[in-house]
Amino acid sequence: MPHLVILYTANIEAQVDVAALCRELADTMVSIKDEQAKQVFPTGGVRVLAYPAKYHAVADGGAAGKAAGCSGDYGFVYLNLRMARGRGDSVKQHIGKALENVVMEHLRTLLEREHIGITLQIDEGQEVFDAKNSSLHPLFRKN
Amino acid sequence: MPHLVILYTANIEAQVDVAALCRELADTMVSIKDEQAKQVFPTGGVRVLAYPAKYHAVADGGAAGKAAGCSGDYGFVYLNLRMARGRGDSVKQHIGKALENVVMEHLRTLLEREHIGITLQIDEGQEVFDAKNSSLHPLFRKN
Amino acid sequence: MPHLVILYTANIEAQVDVAALCRELADTMVSIKDEQAKQVFPTGGVRVLAYPAKYHAVADGGAAGKAAGCSGDYGFVYLNLRMARGRGDSVKQHIGKALENVVMEHLRTLLEREHIGITLQIDEGQEVFDAKNSSLHPLFRKN
Repeated sequence: MPHLVILYTANIEAQVDVAALCRELADTMVSIKDEQAKQVFPTGGVRVLAYPAKYHAVADGGAAGKAAGCSGDYGFVYLNLRMARGRGDSVKQHIGKALENVVMEHLRTLLEREHIGITLQIDEGQEVFDAKNSSLHPLFRKN
Repeated sequence: MPHLVILYTANIEAQVDVAALCRELADTMVSIKDEQAKQVFPTGGVRVLAYPAKYHAVADGGAAGKAAGCSGDYGFVYLNLRMARGRGDSVKQHIGKALENVVMEHLRTLLEREHIGITLQIDEGQEVFDAKNSSLHPLFRKN
Repeated sequence: MPHLVILYTANIEAQVDVAALCRELADTMVSIKDEQAKQVFPTGGVRVLAYPAKYHAVADGGAAGKAAGCSGDYGFVYLNLRMARGRGDSVKQHIGKALENVVMEHLRTLLEREHIGITLQIDEGQEVFDAKNSSLHPLFRKN
């Protein structure tokens, strides 16, 4: 944790570099600081996974978009960050805004040119069992 | 929001048109009305994404199905609708039943011929941060 | 229900047999007993679905791993079991530990050789609508 999962319609790949988006979102997660200037997410715990859907259906399927002179090839990007419980609300808003800024940099042109929806949400995990095993964390522990 | 994510074993694709299922589920979501005959989900907010699993394992792996004279090639379809909090319970049941009807139309034959499981669930999002950016909604706003 | 969804970086496939991991996790879920020696999960309800991500970004992207003399090709495996509400805490811990043991058998070598993170969590579904249709369950019902 935290992990950010991106589910999206595959049609956005023609105009968005999803690999670069993932990398920049991870960099942002690593760089976020709390009010005490402490790193919010441990570097070794940052993960972003992106999944284009094999099939999708969005809104009315394209009729209104075509009627408006566009392709009617609607897109959708859903970003869900799951993180551990217990952080303060101002940190949550700060994290969300920072990630939203990255997403909008990458998608603003597409948002303006085509008809797409972008939703970014943060959930606090409510898990009843939690096991973590990692050989990543030791790489980033300060001596 | 709302968005409906379908996770399924890839073997169902031989007998189910998943693209058509997505489209019909989206159409149904658009058409659902509440008790005041008002559209429950804004058209521009309706999204369905479908993901076949690369690998799967279901139940005992096929032995019981073969012993019963079938292929033993079990399938599974999981549909999860995530929507915003705060709708009344009767609307939730109405939405669920409408989507279940669509799913069953598409999968009934397969359900009867092979051994598959179909689960449809609705979650109310418990997000602690929520950002939406959309160029879809303006297409469907009434003037 | 229950269903176990595995999201992972595709790079682990070079060294992990994900199909076999799915099968063994399903077998374990079928075999788990509660304090009364009763099967916890009905056989026909056990499903495991595995999804490699098309794109991913983990931690710092590889710099620290390379500096430590490794490939810098970090991996991540996230396993999420969603099950019905209402089981006792000791059963939840027992389920979690049993699944973690299977995961670690398959991934321990990779964990030691490369830099990867493995997270296994169990959620209790908080669904507000739930519809199940199955031709699997009758196969496993005792007469």
